[in-house]
Amino acid sequence: MGAATEAPMSAADAAKAAYELRKAKAIERANRPHITDQPITMKNWWRHLNLLNIYLIVIIPILGLWAAWYTPLHKYTLIWAVLYYFNTGMGITAGYHRLWAHTSYSATWPLKLYLALVGGGAVEGSIRWWSRDHRAHHRYTDTDKDPYSVRKGLLYSHIGWMVMKQNPKRIGRTDISDLNEDAIVVWQHKYYLWVVAFMGLVFPSAVAGLLWNDWKGGFVYAGILRIFFVQQATFCVNSLAHWLGEQPFDDRNSPRDHVITALVTLGEGYHNFHHEFPSDYRNAIEWHQYDPTKWCIWTWKQLGLAYDLKEFRSNEIEKGRVQQLQKKIDRKRATLDWGVPLENLPVMEFEEFQAECEKGRALTLIAGVVHDVTDFIKDHPGGKAMIKSGIGKDATAIFNGGVYLHSNAAHNLLSNFRVAVVRGGCEVEIWKQSAKENKDAVPAVD
Amino acid sequence: MGAATEAPMSAADAAKAAYELRKAKAIERANRPHITDQPITMKNWWRHLNLLNIYLIVIIPILGLWAAWYTPLHKYTLIWAVLYYFNTGMGITAGYHRLWAHTSYSATWPLKLYLALVGGGAVEGSIRWWSRDHRAHHRYTDTDKDPYSVRKGLLYSHIGWMVMKQNPKRIGRTDISDLNEDAIVVWQHKYYLWVVAFMGLVFPSAVAGLLWNDWKGGFVYAGILRIFFVQQATFCVNSLAHWLGEQPFDDRNSPRDHVITALVTLGEGYHNFHHEFPSDYRNAIEWHQYDPTKWCIWTWKQLGLAYDLKEFRSNEIEKGRVQQLQKKIDRKRATLDWGVPLENLPVMEFEEFQAECEKGRALTLIAGVVHDVTDFIKDHPGGKAMIKSGIGKDATAIFNGGVYLHSNAAHNLLSNFRVAVVRGGCEVEIWKQSAKENKDAVPAVD
Ligand code: HEM
Ligand code: HEM
Ligand SMILES: [Fe+2]
Ligand SMILES: [Fe+2]
Ligand SMILES: [Fe+2]
Ligand SMILES: [Fe+2]
Repeated sequence: MGAATEAPMSAADAAKAAYELRKAKAIERANRPHITDQPITMKNWWRHLNLLNIYLIVIIPILGLWAAWYTPLHKYTLIWAVLYYFNTGMGITAGYHRLWAHTSYSATWPLKLYLALVGGGAVEGSIRWWSRDHRAHHRYTDTDKDPYSVRKGLLYSHIGWMVMKQNPKRIGRTDISDLNEDAIVVWQHKYYLWVVAFMGLVFPSAVAGLLWNDWKGGFVYAGILRIFFVQQATFCVNSLAHWLGEQPFDDRNSPRDHVITALVTLGEGYHNFHHEFPSDYRNAIEWHQYDPTKWCIWTWKQLGLAYDLKEFRSNEIEKGRVQQLQKKIDRKRATLDWGVPLENLPVMEFEEFQAECEKGRALTLIAGVVHDVTDFIKDHPGGKAMIKSGIGKDATAIFNGGVYLHSNAAHNLLSNFRVAVVRGGCEVEIWKQSAKENKDAVPAVD
Repeated sequence: MGAATEAPMSAADAAKAAYELRKAKAIERANRPHITDQPITMKNWWRHLNLLNIYLIVIIPILGLWAAWYTPLHKYTLIWAVLYYFNTGMGITAGYHRLWAHTSYSATWPLKLYLALVGGGAVEGSIRWWSRDHRAHHRYTDTDKDPYSVRKGLLYSHIGWMVMKQNPKRIGRTDISDLNEDAIVVWQHKYYLWVVAFMGLVFPSAVAGLLWNDWKGGFVYAGILRIFFVQQATFCVNSLAHWLGEQPFDDRNSPRDHVITALVTLGEGYHNFHHEFPSDYRNAIEWHQYDPTKWCIWTWKQLGLAYDLKEFRSNEIEKGRVQQLQKKIDRKRATLDWGVPLENLPVMEFEEFQAECEKGRALTLIAGVVHDVTDFIKDHPGGKAMIKSGIGKDATAIFNGGVYLHSNAAHNLLSNFRVAVVRGGCEVEIWKQSAKENKDAVPAVD
């Protein structure tokens, strides 16, 4: 501090200079255009590929398939591979997704450790990395900041976003301070490659190798191919679940509910519900829907391993359902023909209405509106005589129960026949009658 | 005419006297209390029974079952019985019901004759009698004038109304002038017993007898038991179709849609639709629904036997569906908790709101409404930090996309936390800012 010096650098100054240099380089790096900012050309396309990911999710499975050709499938190994498939899948769905990304329940440390381990065995990145992206996916669904936006194509949301390099600055930022405070998350992130190697390949091979001496089968089937199936299944949450099915809660964004997606993804298929109620530990709310992840979490609760299972009140869920249904109905209603709106109809005098009928037009007055039923008489389900009895008259009462209480459909049909509104409407006849009965009665004037 | 005479009666006078006598007797008969006006007692219960009907729909089938025990079932006779079952059933559904009762299409005389004959073979009364009752059923559905009102019990609507005597005066009156003008209807009514005897029993026995010499089997299986099955199946339209299923078009009355009823009744199971659109020749409107009666009518049209098939426009049908759905939603909406209505909230000054927050209450102002989120902070799916940033402030913009565009579910949830309305609402801060920027600005006063 104080005056500037020309004297040889002190240790502190040297450190400061080194820091400035690192900072300048970091800034320069940050400002350098990212490869994704450049269009894909014949010359640079390979620089757009994320080779590590291609290796992990494409090359290795192909090698695995090739190896499977030469590897007999032991019955126990098959059972073990399926069993381990469910465990590692559960690591992603119950662990990565519902526990860490959404904190939809709390877990004791033994359960957390188990989930961090088997989740690592699914080879889909560390909890920390996965949850950060997933939170961005929820916060910025379908926008450019969504790491796996289905708006960029089904294939992109399934696998493209990993196969192609991504500009990290594009992905939306999210708060993961809670994860940084979680010792197991931090540990798993730090030793991630060890976890993957051990839980992804060593452990599944060793079980088959040590217990029934099928090291190679364990490696190929319970290791490599099982990883491939778990990956593809969970990737479906990003692709299929944003593409196939119903939208009972909100249709502004892409998430959808479908039983097929649920079957493939251990219950993550009720994805429209999930995006609407992300901190609910359930994805399926009906007992008969397939959500084994929910069933596991519920069982862990009974065993004292999980607690604080969060649920949205059914009142909130039903509100959403009612609103979305209302939206659908309103849209449907707008596509239908409801007859000429009343305010667009010409006004007719009652005498005019009667005169028209005398000229032979089949007009009938119902609820103040003149209807032309000339073409309908022959089709009237109640017979020609009945409908003819209403012509030239105010048939409001007849139509509404006086003779027959017409169905809702009949009322709808009637609106198609509207041709005019009568001045004074159905009251006209009453005035005339009262004028006859009482000479002093003053007819209403409008 | 002229003066009264004591002279011996002329022929004309004798006829007149006889007429007067008949008239007096008829009036006396009409005024005599009907058996149904008397309560059922231990002594008179048998007088309440309609013995002819009991004989036709209960005793004969039992005798038939007993006879079947002693009658071997020939393969051809079985096929013939099933085939004839469909023909006589079609006589009721396509003939009695859709053609004559509802005139939902027109038929050439050969088709009419066929339908009048096979319909007679179902032994359910003449076209004239059946259609009159059925029109009353539509016109007075579920009321006392409905001949087979399900409101009197499922069993009553199925068979009770035939087993018990009915007061003819109770049944609603309907216009059947069109049927009285139809030569085939009049003929069938006049020779009804002959038609029943021939088409119900003689013809089915003769086919089996003459072609493969199984007179007895033809009589028992294609005659008696087939009649029993056709009767029970078509009776289901009056019972099951008013009791089981959905009500997509109107739920004020009892008719319901169900695939089971459709399967039993040759397609008459979409009965909610049918009561709403009785003159539509279809009962099922979707191609994948089971309505063989419709398929037959359509085929007859292709063959030139039927014409003028009536259909309600899909616009009319969809209008009904939308309205019924709207009714359901409105009912559902009324059962849900939508938070304290805005007009019931107390009014707060903006300063009061801030003061409360300083005292430690977690209040946030969104769209002019103060929300108490104290208990929700720990559950906020976007993290504690985020929601805390909105406390003591007008968070309208933050909540609506400034930081995160909250879902519809979040908006619904928010309404549960309402505690007050702020005077001036979200504009208050803007005024303060503008007052700082421009000393002359006049804050709005309300
Ligand atoms: C003015 C326009 C009219 C329209 C658009 C109309 C429409 C209909 C429709 C669609 C039905 C079938 C059943 C239903 O959906 O409720 C029906 C049945 C009936 N209508 Fe009308 N109607 C009109 C006028 C009248 C009048 C003026 C009368 C009586 C004076 C009348 C008497 C009946 C009766 C008695 C039935 C019952 C027929 C049955 O189910 O057997 N209608 N009408
Ligand atoms: C004041 C009452 C608030 C309520 C009732 C509320 C409710 C919710 C709910 C239910 C979600 C789950 C996702 C969704 O349904 O949209 C959510 C997510 C979120 N909220 Fe809030 N919120 C509130 C305030 C805030 C505030 C003030 C902020 C920011 C300053 C905020 C930021 C977020 C973010 C960023 C998410 C996304 C979390 C994710 O999907 O990973 N919220 N909020
Ligand atoms: Fe999603
Ligand atoms: Fe999620
Ligand atoms: Fe009915
Ligand atoms: Fe009918």
